[in-house]
Amino acid sequence: MNKLFVGIDIGGTAIKAGLLSDKGEVLCNDRIPTRTEAGVQGILMDCLGLCHSMLSSVGAEQSAVVGIGMGVPGMVDGSVVTEATNLGWDKVELAAEFAKISSIPLRVANDADAAALGEVRCGAARGMKNVFMLTLGTGLGSGIIINGSIYPGNHGFGGEMGHVVLVSGGRKCCCGRRGCAELYLSAPALIRDAKAALRRHPESVLAGLQGFGTKEIFESSDTDELCGELVKRYTRRLSELCLNIANAFRPEAIILGGGISLAGEKLTAPVQRALDEESLARCFAPRIDVLPAMLGNSAGFIGAAGLWWE
Amino acid sequence: MNKLFVGIDIGGTAIKAGLLSDKGEVLCNDRIPTRTEAGVQGILMDCLGLCHSMLSSVGAEQSAVVGIGMGVPGMVDGSVVTEATNLGWDKVELAAEFAKISSIPLRVANDADAAALGEVRCGAARGMKNVFMLTLGTGLGSGIIINGSIYPGNHGFGGEMGHVVLVSGGRKCCCGRRGCAELYLSAPALIRDAKAALRRHPESVLAGLQGFGTKEIFESSDTDELCGELVKRYTRRLSELCLNIANAFRPEAIILGGGISLAGEKLTAPVQRALDEESLARCFAPRIDVLPAMLGNSAGFIGAAGLWWE
Repeated sequence: MNKLFVGIDIGGTAIKAGLLSDKGEVLCNDRIPTRTEAGVQGILMDCLGLCHSMLSSVGAEQSAVVGIGMGVPGMVDGSVVTEATNLGWDKVELAAEFAKISSIPLRVANDADAAALGEVRCGAARGMKNVFMLTLGTGLGSGIIINGSIYPGNHGFGGEMGHVVLVSGGRKCCCGRRGCAELYLSAPALIRDAKAALRRHPESVLAGLQGFGTKEIFESSDTDELCGELVKRYTRRLSELCLNIANAFRPEAIILGGGISLAGEKLTAPVQRALDEESLARCFAPRIDVLPAMLGNSAGFIGAAGLWWE
Repeated sequence: MNKLFVGIDIGGTAIKAGLLSDKGEVLCNDRIPTRTEAGVQGILMDCLGLCHSMLSSVGAEQSAVVGIGMGVPGMVDGSVVTEATNLGWDKVELAAEFAKISSIPLRVANDADAAALGEVRCGAARGMKNVFMLTLGTGLGSGIIINGSIYPGNHGFGGEMGHVVLVSGGRKCCCGRRGCAELYLSAPALIRDAKAALRRHPESVLAGLQGFGTKEIFESSDTDELCGELVKRYTRRLSELCLNIANAFRPEAIILGGGISLAGEKLTAPVQRALDEESLARCFAPRIDVLPAMLGNSAGFIGAAGLWWE
């Protein structure tokens, strides 16, 4: 029997899981709602159930499982989870809790870090060693891969690129500082900017829609003046953040994930151009690739399984 | 015979070298002028001469030397040195060149990276794993230590925190961007700011001096209004850079080195306070220490020798 690995991505609304081979192939995957109200043990029981149902669907025994990797939306220090507010978890000894119900060994990581690892192991940046991933969604998440492994920061408290200042003296952030990147680069920020600008642009295609998301803004950026302006300003700001990352860290690639990254080339091309033309070592260093994430919602559980492929 | 290690820091004006024990003690050290005009082989011969004279001063044989580490002011990819403009070196295969004149194995690193490694192995951040060092001098240099080793960036082109934007839309930088940190945090930048402000403050103690450096500005910051203002603005800007590093990377410590760091507490205390009060995970994560560099000009050769203590 081949070795198997289980990856589980515990989100605030759904738990996504996959059973992977030692080559990183997803043999099967599944998802269930997150029963936050069931507490730590309830959620872990659900995870174990998912694990067993995936094993039986491929006709494999539990003994074939080398380990389970879990991505959680909180700070992770070893296997202690802190400040997972969406789950209501704080200072949870996750491996110890899991050991009460299963003998399968568990490794744990922050969910954004796990997604970055997934993209490095099996996705957009396969085989690269030093990679930054920015997740442009409800917030601005980030994952840092250094030397092929997650860089978690001291005690798991690192990697919050959303709270690096992008606009000095800019908008007031809930963290207490001003001008944090998340206030300009998250999906809600782009939509808020669009709504504010609509007053000046009643002719925009956006004005005729019942509601719109970042998808509609990017889709009309070539034909609609307002959408064009919004995308230009958004990609310029994103480029500034990526240029800072480029100069400070010179990774091999920056991966752009999250809902906004579905815009594809319209998002990545201007950022790639900025790095090619404006980054510090542009004249003599190898190019830094700007890559759209490939694994979508599967990155988290694939990367979580990847915690076992060191 | 105990094992010995040689560390050499090749600067634009001087070559500093030390002979170290396997416990990291500096058994002896020396410095000579850099004969830039002698080219790569000339400088390497001088380095080998330094090495032999240090060995004979402690009565040791060459066979006791495990290896030589060299810090150079340029980009370092493996042992290839690029863009070492102060030395006139570009694309120099340093280990291969050195092998022509000596059988002692050589390891090479960027000089700022080597200094950071020195402070982590034997200085201010001894024993820490994840540390950023900012060198506040003629420019703004930086060294990043991750998991106890130098993080050099892809092909050695990383770690230029001086070219992270600190003031959006600010001063024009030679790199092409605007508002780079180096334009506000280097010693020449602080002195230029002081000279510009002197017009508004003819009563300042600085006005009575023939010339002044950053030392005089910090020394009078408690008693002179202008100096107080300058130091407050400088440390606030430095705090913003350190807060960005804190939120993005959450290292165990940030070391401040270079000439300006001789100001000691007057420099480090306001930055420490900013991290304690404003960094993202301040309420639940361990403190990030702000530490003045301890090894001064010796950090470079100590860290270079440290390349052999993996």
